[in-house]
Order: sequence, then C-alpha cells, then structure tokens
Amino acid sequence: MRLSRYFMPILKENPKEAEIVSHRLMLRAGMIRQQSQGIYSWLPLGKRVLDKVNNIIRDEQNRAGAIELSMPTLQSAELWQESGRYDAYGKEMLRIKDRQDRPMLYGPTNEEMVTDIFRSYVKSYKSLPLNLYHIQLKFRDEIRPRFGTMRSREFMMKDAYSFDLTREGAEHSYKKMFTAYLRTFDRLGLRAIPMRADTGPIGGDLSHEFIILADTGESEVYSHKDFVDFDIPAVDTDFDDVAGLDAIFKKWTSVYAATSEMHDEAAFDAIPESDRLSARGIEVGHIFYFGTKYSEPMGAKVQGPDGKEHNVHMGSYGIGPTRLVPAIIEASHDENGIIWPASVAPFDAVVINMKAGDAACDAACEKIYAALSSAGKDVLYDDTDDRAGTKFATADLIGVPVQIIAGPRAVASGEVEVKDRKTGARETMTIDAAINKLLG
Amino acid sequence: MRLSRYFMPILKENPKEAEIVSHRLMLRAGMIRQQSQGIYSWLPLGKRVLDKVNNIIRDEQNRAGAIELSMPTLQSAELWQESGRYDAYGKEMLRIKDRQDRPMLYGPTNEEMVTDIFRSYVKSYKSLPLNLYHIQLKFRDEIRPRFGTMRSREFMMKDAYSFDLTREGAEHSYKKMFTAYLRTFDRLGLRAIPMRADTGPIGGDLSHEFIILADTGESEVYSHKDFVDFDIPAVDTDFDDVAGLDAIFKKWTSVYAATSEMHDEAAFDAIPESDRLSARGIEVGHIFYFGTKYSEPMGAKVQGPDGKEHNVHMGSYGIGPTRLVPAIIEASHDENGIIWPASVAPFDAVVINMKAGDAACDAACEKIYAALSSAGKDVLYDDTDDRAGTKFATADLIGVPVQIIAGPRAVASGEVEVKDRKTGARETMTIDAAINKLLG
Repeated sequence: MRLSRYFMPILKENPKEAEIVSHRLMLRAGMIRQQSQGIYSWLPLGKRVLDKVNNIIRDEQNRAGAIELSMPTLQSAELWQESGRYDAYGKEMLRIKDRQDRPMLYGPTNEEMVTDIFRSYVKSYKSLPLNLYHIQLKFRDEIRPRFGTMRSREFMMKDAYSFDLTREGAEHSYKKMFTAYLRTFDRLGLRAIPMRADTGPIGGDLSHEFIILADTGESEVYSHKDFVDFDIPAVDTDFDDVAGLDAIFKKWTSVYAATSEMHDEAAFDAIPESDRLSARGIEVGHIFYFGTKYSEPMGAKVQGPDGKEHNVHMGSYGIGPTRLVPAIIEASHDENGIIWPASVAPFDAVVINMKAGDAACDAACEKIYAALSSAGKDVLYDDTDDRAGTKFATADLIGVPVQIIAGPRAVASGEVEVKDRKTGARETMTIDAAINKLLG
Repeated sequence: MRLSRYFMPILKENPKEAEIVSHRLMLRAGMIRQQSQGIYSWLPLGKRVLDKVNNIIRDEQNRAGAIELSMPTLQSAELWQESGRYDAYGKEMLRIKDRQDRPMLYGPTNEEMVTDIFRSYVKSYKSLPLNLYHIQLKFRDEIRPRFGTMRSREFMMKDAYSFDLTREGAEHSYKKMFTAYLRTFDRLGLRAIPMRADTGPIGGDLSHEFIILADTGESEVYSHKDFVDFDIPAVDTDFDDVAGLDAIFKKWTSVYAATSEMHDEAAFDAIPESDRLSARGIEVGHIFYFGTKYSEPMGAKVQGPDGKEHNVHMGSYGIGPTRLVPAIIEASHDENGIIWPASVAPFDAVVINMKAGDAACDAACEKIYAALSSAGKDVLYDDTDDRAGTKFATADLIGVPVQIIAGPRAVASGEVEVKDRKTGARETMTIDAAINKLLG
C-alpha cells in the first residue's frame, strides 16, 4: 500500500478525551474514530489489525472443532421472553420497535437465538457434540462507555455455544474452548491468565475469565505467579483427547487465580508472599458452562441413546476482538507508539523513502516494495513528500515491526537501513539483503 | 470438513414459505434460517458462500484503489439532520432511542457518516482522489420483506464512497467502480448488464444499476442483446488510465439498456426487433454520482490548487452480498439443486463414502480427503452412515462442483468415480488420478 494513496489520518496532538494509552494511540495512529458515544468506526489501519485478530480467533475456534455461522444483530423480543431474560436484562439491552410495532432488540449476546437454531434442527444425541460460533457486532448500552473500544457500546464479539448430551460431555467442550483460548491469546502476543469468575447474567456454575495484566485494567485480580511460565498447549493438541485436555485444564487451574468477585482471601494468603500477584487486569475472554439454563425453558432436547428426551447441556464462550486490539496495545507500546506483535501487525514492514522524488531512492524503494508485495507480504510504502522526521515518527507510532529506511547516502552505495521497531536496533545492509531478511 | 461433525441441516420437504427457487434451495440446503421477519441467520454452509462472495468483492474493490474501513451499524440522528435526510427517509429507516433518550438509527446506508469522517481529516486536494468502502450490515424496514435474503430487512452491503475535487475527477472515480463491478460480477459467474437508472433517495444525476436477468426479478428491464457478448475488462486493467476506463465505460453504455423507471420507448423501438431484450431482472449493484449533494450541507471541503475551498464531488457504489447469493442461485441451478460457480462454491469438492465403516472405502476416502485438504482445498467429506441415495441427493442439492464417489466395488479395483455437478458427467479413475484432477 502506497501511503500517498492510503487513508491513515495521523493526529499530531494527543486527543484530550483519551484517558488510557491504547485509546490515545489508536486515535493518534488513525485506527478508530468515535461516531457517537461509545460507537466507533474502524479506520483502514485499525480494520487491518482487527481482521488479523479475528482470523487468529477463527483459526483456533476451527481447530477446536467449533463451526462458524453468522446470526443477525437484531433479535425478536419473543425469544428473550422464552428464556426469561427479556425483563431481567435491564437498561443495557437496546430495545427497539420496528415499523409494525413489534418489540425487537439489538443482541447483547446470542444464547437464546442459538438455542432456537439448535432446537429447530437437532433431534438426536448422534449430532452431538456441537459447537457453533459467530463473530458479530453486539450492542450493550453501557451507562459510561469509555477507554475507546475497550468499553464501547457497539462492539464485536466472538461468541461460541456448545451443546452436549451430558454434563460430562459439556465439560469436555468447555475444556476445548479453554485450551483454544490459551492458544489464541498466545498467538496474539498476550499472556492471559484464566481466573475463576462469577457467572453474572449468563448463569451457570463453572466459569473462567481470561485476564491480561495491565495497570489500566478495570478488574482487580489475584493470582499465583507461576502462571507466567506455564506452557501453551501445542498446535497439534488433540481436542478429542478427553484426558489430554483435562490435564491442560488441571494444570492451568491448579494454582490460585481469581477476580475480586470470586476472591478468597484465605486461599490467597496461603500462597507464600513472594509468589502472590495482586494486580489490575483486562478481561479479554469469558467462558461459561451453564447446563440446562436455556435448553430447559426453551425446549432444546435431543433423544439420547436410552430413547428418552434430554435437555442439552450448554456452555458459551466469548472473546471481544474490538477490546483485544487496545488490550494488545496496553501490553505492548513505548513512548513513541504502538509495538505490534508480528501476528496482528497491520503491515509486515514499512518502506520509508527519505527523499521521495530522488530517482535512486525511488528506485530502491520501488524494488523493495515490489519484491515484498509480490511475495505476499503486507507492505506500507511511505512515498509521501513529508520530512524524514515526520516519517520516522509515523512509522514508530503505527508500530509496524520492521522499518526499511532508504536515504540518498545509503542508497548511493546500494544499501538501506533496517530498523526493528521493538528493540530499536538498526542495521545497514544491501537492498537484496533487506528483501531476503523480510522473506527469510 | 467431516459431515459427521458439521452442521448442515438439510430439509427433506420443500418449505412452504419459499416463493422463488433460490429461497427454497437456500432453506433446503441449510444455508439460512429466518429468525424474524426478513432477518436471517447464515448457517455454516451459507456463511461459507457469503464469505467467498465478499472476498471477491473486496479483491476487486482493492484492485480499483478503494480502501476498506468499517463503520458502525448504529448512527446518530444528528448526522442525518445535517444532510436533511432524517425526516425525508421515511419508515424504512429504523429509528431507535438509547437509554439516554438520544435519537439513533440503524444505518440504511452511510453517505452521511463517511462524509463526516472525510471532513474530519481531509483538508487538501492532495489527498484526493479517495474512495472508502466497507462491507457492513444495514437495516431497511421493508414493509414486505420476501424471497429470503433477496429482499430482507437486515442485510449486508458493500458500500463505497468516492471523493474528488472536480466533477471530471468524480467521473473517473465512477468509471473505476463501473469497471470493478463488471469484473466482480463476472468472477461471481454472473453476466450483469449496467443500466441507466433512477437515482432515487440517494440523489444525483448519473447512475447505473447492474442487473442480471432472471424470471423472478423484481425489475422490468429493456436492453440491446449485444451486452451478452461484450468482453469483461482484464485483470491487468490500469485503473489510473482515464482514457482506458472511459473506453470501457463508453463500450458498455453504447447500446440501449434501462430499467422501467428510465425506459425510453422510442429509443427501444429504434432497435431492430430481433435485437431487443425485454425481461425481468435482479438488481445486484447500484452506483451513483451525486456531486456535492452531501458535501455542501455537511461542509466537506478541501483546499484546491487555487488556494480556495471547494465542496468535494462524491459518488456511492453499492453491492449487496446477501442478495448476490440468491441471485447466483437463480442464475445457476437445476431440478436437483444448486450449481455453484467454482469461485463461490462452499467446498471445492465433496468426497462421498458410499459405505462408511467399510475399511477399504474409509481408507480411500481418508486418503483423498487428506491429500486435498493438505493442498489447501476446501473439501466436505460425507462420512455419515446415511444411504447412498441420500448422500447423492445432498451432494446435488448443495451444488459443490465436483463429487468424488467411493463405493466398495470401484475401491476394490483402486478406483473412484468423479462426477461433475454441472454437466452430470461421471468418470471412473484411480484414486491418485482423482486427487490430481482436483489439484491440477
């Protein structure tokens, strides 16, 4: 992408409304724009990161056997009356009447709708286990949306829903998602700690929040320090292996971790003081087992091997992509801007032409841009006539992992400078070496 | 994907509510489910097709220089009051009040919001031309939603918006999208005819609808037959070449074509009778040039090379992916089901195990499934214990281009049957030959 033809509106000034660093950097880098309170556009740079986050989430959901569909944003109130949540949900639910005066709502979550889909088609235990997910917009009318897309009203959520014949089966489904989440956050460059959590309005008796530690987090969390060194389940994890997943689950729940709602002072105090971690955290995922809470009132039954009908055991599993983007920034930035993990960087590299219009600089940059692009790399080429200092500041701000800098002096000797955004290390090398370094 | 682990709820009976073939087939193949009037879930098979359609649209938008972002679904009423459309839009606009009693709406289109984004950041003609698009849900509260996702209330739209300093520039931007649309529909396996069209509530004085001919179409269309043989612009079309795009545009608008709103009887009658085409059509895209209709009331100005401020000239360009899926089916099906063009097929091939549980059949199928999957093909493996007849009917219904059929007799001689869904041609070949045929 040539910057001269891109739309990446960089703000020079720190926006006053931003209270936390991720919000400030997302606004400054032209990733998002607030359209109304707690409702954001994702500008092109932000959209690229969001897409990469979603693709990692999707990849790991699929690996764990979940199947993607897409449910609509607007729901009929009737479904929520069946489950009993229509009246219970409160003012966070955006209630709407259509032109026929039928009560609708903008879905804050999809337990009811997916249960309705399930009961319409699935009649036998032979179709189980089943896990259906979508990545879809949700709306929760927060009284105080803030921190940019960290706590917004219209937001994106990956929500998966599992269906099993028995509690035992449902626990296996739960552990599949537990494992998939560990892998997902790791691939996003985050160390997330699963913590026992309150089940809140979803209901149920087994629930974990996945929390990353950050000073700006909204939750208080208490855990054992050992988590930081636990191994992430491997890419070839067999999700059908009940004992294997159980071992992963046991390991990751073997030491103390809880949010303030579930905090047990006595248990925490029993940990040697030097191993205690008490910090603030950002919730980036939440998983629930809630048994027959929805299947029973909504009549989602299957015939079991015994020939009888059984209410299915369900769980739901949420990750917020539009919250994950700022969470990644909170975990990875410096005073000059964002430092993207390579897996979610909007571009793999930025080519900086320090003297656009200079024939040698132009030729060097075009060569690098063409070679990397045709090899499938996402490259931003800063071909504008801005000052070199502005270009450097922009490249640092947007946090692309590698900067390839072509100035007249180096280019005269057939060389460019390659800078690692994270470490700041710079290396001068030939143009071909720079290309090979990126492709290597 | 193993069918035994997939969610593809096939309906055996023809659903009563379906009036047109695409609606019937989408319901029967388990592609969609109506959640409330005119509001659909896209079940996994449908989601796969929709994703492929969106990716082709995206690819051609990017090729034409448009830049993707993502605007939210909910908009503030204020923006629409600025443009004057809030009161004008009528009952199709879903109006909402949030918990603070602020008037909002579910966006039926995004001219106002994108103009607001533009005016916030772009100040100079040097940033032009600019074309921003997103693929996002829209809501239009149709009084009579029908024909499944062909005319639904919550639907997906790719909407692009161009910004230029002058009318001349805007016409070039218009022709970029005109050309991109010809390529897009062609890649989707459709022959779309651009027709002069009424600009309706969007406004403006230059507009084309892209129409595909189908008996179930809602529009009456009149055109010259020559369209059917016009060449589609090539993949290496230079979108910056003003004269080149103009030649494409002139060619494709050189002969008569109009919807009923713009129909000119005299001009049509001047065509030799054997060359007249009078038919029903489905609108699959609509492009507009509307000058300063929004930039003027909303103050979207840039400084020109003359140092003065100019209202930008705008256009908007829509394609409905959730309508395109049924449109493709209307254009490509037979009495047994859907016939997908390869570019949008939910799977590249289906492997049919005629005797699941038979060691030789299982081994042959697993070998083919593994070889094709690891080569990046999307393969559905029917490993269920359904009857062979049911499996054949399902494969035909869902319209996957190639069926690889493994029965005990053929497999005993190391062979399988390969069936072309479109022609019905069947060929017996070795397992390796079948694999190579798919990979070739």
